[in-house]
This record gives sequence, structure tokens and C-alpha cells, in this order.
Amino acid sequence: MNKDFQVSPAYALELDSQDKLASFREAFVIIDPGLIYLDGNSLGRLPKAAFERAKQVIEKEWGGDLIRGWNKGWWESPARVGEKIARLVGASAGQVVVADTTSVNLFKLVMAVLGLNPQRKRIITDTMNFPSDLYILQGCVQLLGNRHEIIRIDSNDDGVTPDLDALEKAINEDTALVTLSHVLFKSGYLYDMKQITGMAHRKGAFVLWDLSHSVGAVPIALDDCDADFAVGCTYKYLNGGPGSPAFLYVKKSIQEGLSSPIWGWWGQHQPFAFGLDYSPAPGATRFLIGSHAVLGSLTMEAALGPLLQAGMDSLRAKSILMTDYASYLTDNLLAPFGFSLGSPHDSARRGSHISIRHPEGYRINRALIEEMNVIPDFREPDNIRLGFAPLYISFAEVREGFERIRRVMEEKRYEKYPKQRLSVT
Amino acid sequence: MNKDFQVSPAYALELDSQDKLASFREAFVIIDPGLIYLDGNSLGRLPKAAFERAKQVIEKEWGGDLIRGWNKGWWESPARVGEKIARLVGASAGQVVVADTTSVNLFKLVMAVLGLNPQRKRIITDTMNFPSDLYILQGCVQLLGNRHEIIRIDSNDDGVTPDLDALEKAINEDTALVTLSHVLFKSGYLYDMKQITGMAHRKGAFVLWDLSHSVGAVPIALDDCDADFAVGCTYKYLNGGPGSPAFLYVKKSIQEGLSSPIWGWWGQHQPFAFGLDYSPAPGATRFLIGSHAVLGSLTMEAALGPLLQAGMDSLRAKSILMTDYASYLTDNLLAPFGFSLGSPHDSARRGSHISIRHPEGYRINRALIEEMNVIPDFREPDNIRLGFAPLYISFAEVREGFERIRRVMEEKRYEKYPKQRLSVT
Repeated sequence: MNKDFQVSPAYALELDSQDKLASFREAFVIIDPGLIYLDGNSLGRLPKAAFERAKQVIEKEWGGDLIRGWNKGWWESPARVGEKIARLVGASAGQVVVADTTSVNLFKLVMAVLGLNPQRKRIITDTMNFPSDLYILQGCVQLLGNRHEIIRIDSNDDGVTPDLDALEKAINEDTALVTLSHVLFKSGYLYDMKQITGMAHRKGAFVLWDLSHSVGAVPIALDDCDADFAVGCTYKYLNGGPGSPAFLYVKKSIQEGLSSPIWGWWGQHQPFAFGLDYSPAPGATRFLIGSHAVLGSLTMEAALGPLLQAGMDSLRAKSILMTDYASYLTDNLLAPFGFSLGSPHDSARRGSHISIRHPEGYRINRALIEEMNVIPDFREPDNIRLGFAPLYISFAEVREGFERIRRVMEEKRYEKYPKQRLSVT
Repeated sequence: MNKDFQVSPAYALELDSQDKLASFREAFVIIDPGLIYLDGNSLGRLPKAAFERAKQVIEKEWGGDLIRGWNKGWWESPARVGEKIARLVGASAGQVVVADTTSVNLFKLVMAVLGLNPQRKRIITDTMNFPSDLYILQGCVQLLGNRHEIIRIDSNDDGVTPDLDALEKAINEDTALVTLSHVLFKSGYLYDMKQITGMAHRKGAFVLWDLSHSVGAVPIALDDCDADFAVGCTYKYLNGGPGSPAFLYVKKSIQEGLSSPIWGWWGQHQPFAFGLDYSPAPGATRFLIGSHAVLGSLTMEAALGPLLQAGMDSLRAKSILMTDYASYLTDNLLAPFGFSLGSPHDSARRGSHISIRHPEGYRINRALIEEMNVIPDFREPDNIRLGFAPLYISFAEVREGFERIRRVMEEKRYEKYPKQRLSVT
């Protein structure tokens, strides 16, 4: 960590003056400049270009082109937008398509990989994965007659990092699949994709990465890591909008042997022949199903513009500086009030959000939202998550956000709230 | 059929003057008033209210509320919008939710029903169903180990109507599921939902209706017909926009025994507890999966306004008059050029589109689109489909559309086009 950090607000302004990405904030719609928005890891801000594109798609294309829109770019958009996302995840052409939701994509790929390796019965994940991913795995196992075993690796005692030794020991010759979130949604821990993928491959297991919390936040090199499968959402750091469609990645060399469990018209080899019997389209396209969300896809496509322009290396550099700075402020402004860092101190093992832990986390989070115009989010049991989207957050905002947390503690503002769970996603 | 129809354009204006729904055209964005749009059964026109709502959702809710939008109406929208669609399909509360695509919904429900009745091995559908639905069925059978048999009932010799005797004979004590499109996508034939559902129930089989071509076009009474399951899309007569999310219906009395094959976080009984083990939510909600397309859903919700205001009975009355008129014009203006009606003459057995058949259908369709500013669509082998969305189409437009088809024939404009297939959806 940078040892020269200072707690003074003036220091934040100095960091901003050196921020080469600062002007990207102008690319976003900011309705309330006083709001400190630290939840871009749940729902990214609205890019101006996305709003303009949505209006164009609705009025000119839907309103004017009508059905002809399918022949003017809508039909190809799952693959076209997929190739743009491919640039953010280190994938060469023909491996990424936009489709459905992250959960549906996970279902399709897990079912496909378990079909490849029916004699292998072990599926490995961890207890810090998205519950939604665990549910999908459980459903797949049930659907296949409960012949598989899901092994969930626990965290180390810190509750922040995974037990890598246990993970390595669990992967054996009976392992069909290792599936993990690249960045853990609570602690922000970042798995070493190359290391874990190699570990699985040495035992002949496939690896599926959920990139939802890492895409657009950290550089990803799927091809270089020899990853087999990946899924991810586009409404977090990709700023695609609420419920924007998800994507999936399938490594080129294994595509042709795979069968989707859901045989969709869009994944058919000749959809417009309207034949009565299904046969799969070549490549990753076979994992498409039905008419995709055109409005959501094309809006999200436009949202990718600023990210692609800034480039993942610049974004990562700012993100590391910012999460280091936030860790420093946690230690120096909030530790006296009983906070501790619930994320790795080592930036090489951290995504673009940190969790700060406090026994009163739930009530503090509510006070921040309801009184202080700060939006983090809360995750059980004691994590306040602070997401730092480097495209539109300034260091001055980060400093001011921590000041507002400090005031909540100093003035004990959280005490008036009931001890309950909040339903912010 | 109304025997008083006349071919004169003046007669169309007379019909328009008596049309109580004529003013609803004002509720739609019409960019090119000269365009005769007869493909609202593939992609409905843009309602002004939907455009306004989309802008509001993007700018005010996504841009301004940000993550708080989930607590201000986004989270509940699959059920809320489902209840609005329920009014169009004759379903009481708690049975319709908006989710995913029609194909994914069909997959979930078919897998669920086959799980209910594992000893029954027969699935019955027809050769005139959407190929996309047939593919989903084939995928389900494959996933379940090829233990089921799919029986596809052929049409009668007319190629227009289903062979109901063969259908009735095929449904036996081994039949798990009868699944059909309520209105057939090519011929527009409308199944008698009550009759067929009763026929299946007498043998203990479940019935699943695909309402994609009937919802918003004909009155539907799912509860009254005792239907078990239904799916449908919202971008045809519901005018929800390209790729807007689909819906599903599950009869209340059988919901609790069902298990979705895709165990989604949105279908979990306590999603915000973030527990590591899945258990299903009560009711139809268990068929939700992942974060739904908020932008598409809320835009579609607003699009339902004019339909709900007009009411299905008024819409059906106009639709019947219009398809009768179109059938009359086919016989009186186009039959001399070799056209025949590829749809039922009896309006009681017809949805809101008709097919007109001609050996040169493909080339005629291209000439209409490229030279005549008419948009029908073409379906193999010889069907030009003409969709009549009663909310925004006038009788004068219908008359003018037929006049333009007549001119294409008289001037042999189609002859310059190659004999190929067109990829308009």
C-alpha cells in the first residue's frame, strides 16, 4: 500500500488532480452531485451514451424500423455485443455471447459440462460464492438424479479469504467441475484465475468462473488462463442498467462437444428454415435460447463505450489506488469506532470493492442511506460494502464518504434504527 | 362473414367511421403514416406511453434512484406486471409472473410437469406449433434420458386446421402433457381451449398453452378453461418492444407440488437471507430465476395500458370484422391472381392474423416490403402473413394494403426478386 496517504481532505483533492480518468465522470448522468454512490458494484451509474442509445433504439428502431430492426443489427447483437465484452475479459473472437441472465447461463453451462464428464461426480465451489450460484448448482444436481456431490470450501478463519489448501486437496480425479466467483461478493477477494484453473486442469476438471464482480473492475485474461467457461452480469461495473442481459464464455476448443440443456430456436443451426427438428448452431451460439432483450442489450452495448475507451489497465491502476486509500481511511478514521477491514489488504488479491465490518453494520448502513446521502450496501452478518467504480468516482467523494461514516459513529445516528435486515440488492 | 362488405375504398372509410377503437391509434408513435404495417403479430408498434415510461425508468429511476430503484417498484415488478397480463388471459391473482423468454418459461414448465408424472411417457403437440416450442420439447426429452415420446399431430389436408380426431385419439392414459399454440403462427387457427383442455383432462394429462399469438388478440379464459399451464411473449400484440420479457401461468391448485428445474435466487423463499441452501418460494414465484430485465419489463408494463383500456371484447369484435374484411378482399381482389386464403374462414376459429397463400409468396412479400411500403411477413412455404392489430390499424389501411398487393401482381413487380428465403422474424 502507498505509505504516503494522508487523512486530510486536501490530500484527496491532490489525488484527484493526478487522476487521468477524472474526465470520464462527465460521461455519466449525475442527478444529485451530493450523493456519494458506493454501490456501482451492484448497479452501475447511467452512462449518458446509454440513455441516448436507448432513446434511439426505442423511437427510431422500434418505432420507425419496426420488424425491420431485426435485419438492421438486432439479430446479430448477442454475438456483436459479446465480442465487445470479450475485449474486457481477454477472449478472442467466437467465444462470448450475450444471453439471458447470469443464473440461466450458469445453468446451461453447468449442465453442459456435467454431460461431458458423466462419470465424474464431484463439483467444487466455496461458501463465499453467490448464493444464487449455489442454488443453480443444487438444482442441476437434483435434476441429474442426485448423483453428484457439491463440495463447498470454507473461508479461512478471517472470513475474508478462501482456504486454498483445502481447495487444492478437494480437487481430485472424480472432480467434474470447479466453479467459483472470480471476485467474492462480500470480501472482494480476487482469486488467481491462472493458478486455480491450472490446479483444476491437472486433475482433469473443468473450470467455470463467475465474473459478475470482476468484469469491468479488474483485467481478466480468460484465454491466457486457459479457462473453460465463464458467466457474468453486465449491470455492475459494466453499467448496463437494471437487469441488463448477461453473457457467457465457452473456450473455443471445447465448444463443438457441448450440448445446451435448453434447445432454443436462437441456438438452432438454421432458425429461418423453421424445420421441426433441432440441431445445434456452431460454436457458442448454441447456448442462445429465445428472442433476446434487444432494448437491454443495445443500451448495455452503448454503456460499454467509456470502459473500452479508458482501458482495463488504467481502470485497474485507479481502482487499486482507490481501494488502498479506502483501506487506509478505514484504519485511520474508522478503526477507533470499532470497524475492521473485511477485505484483503493486498491489492493484488482484491477486486474494486471493500467490505468494512462492524457489529452494528446493518444500522450504520441504514443511517448512511437515510440521513447522510451515502449509498453503500449491507451484507450479512456485519459487512458494509463500499464499491469503487473507477470510471466515475473521485477521491474527494471517497474521502467525504468516510467522513460521513465517521459522523454517523460520532453522533451515534445509527442507534435509532431497528436491528433488522435491509432488502437492498 | 358479413355479407355486406364492398371492395370500394369508400367502404373502408365507412367501416372506420363506425370504429369505436379508432382513437387508440393516437396512442402509438407512427413515424411513417404511409407505411401499411401488417406485422404487429411479430412486433407490435411503439405505444407513446411505453416510450415515455422507458425514458423515465432510465433517467429518473436508474439515473437518479440508482440501486434504490429495487425498493421502489423494480423488485415486485415480475408479479405486478404479471397481474396486469392476468387480466388479459382470464387468470385470477397469484398465477402469472413475468420472467425470462417464452422458451425458457416453456422449458421450466415442461420439466416441472414431466417431473409430476414420471410414469407417463407421451407428450403431444402438433406440426403447426412454433418450431421453437418443438425444439424445447426435444431438449427436455433428451435431458430426461429419451424416455418420453413426442407425438406431433399433423394438420388436415388443408394445411390450415389441425386434425382434431387424431389429436383426441393420441391422448391416452400414458400422456403426461398436451402442449399447443393457442393460435397457430402460420394459419392463425384458434384452438378451442376449453374443448382441448377437457379432452386432455379426461385422460389425466396436463395441458400447457403457448399464448404468444393469442394474448392481446383474442379473449382468453385460462381459469374458466381449467388450463394447467401457459406461456407467452409480450412483443407481439402486447406491444412490449423487441425482446420484451415473457410470462408464465401456473394454475393455483397445482403450484405447490411443482419444482422448477432451474433453482433461481429470485425463486428462493428468502432471497435476502442469503442462505446457502435453496428452498422454493411459494406459488408461481418459484419459477423466477435471476435479476429480471427491469427496463424491458417496465416499458412493457406501460405498453399494456391502451390494451387494458380498450378491453379484449371490443378488440376482438374489431379484429373479427377486420380479418373477415381481409378474407373478403382476398377472395375479391386477389383470388384472380392465384391467391388463396391460408386461414380458417370461420372467425370463431381464427386469431387476429390471416395467411394468404401464393406459390410466389416469398417474392411478392419482398416486393411489398421493398417497393410498396407494406410490411407483412413470409412463412415457408407459401404464406404471406397479414397481422391485424386492432388497436392501431384502420380499415382504410387494410384496403390500401390489399390494393398494393394487387398492384404488385398486376405489374408483376415480384419477378425481379430471386427465389430465396427472407430472414425477417
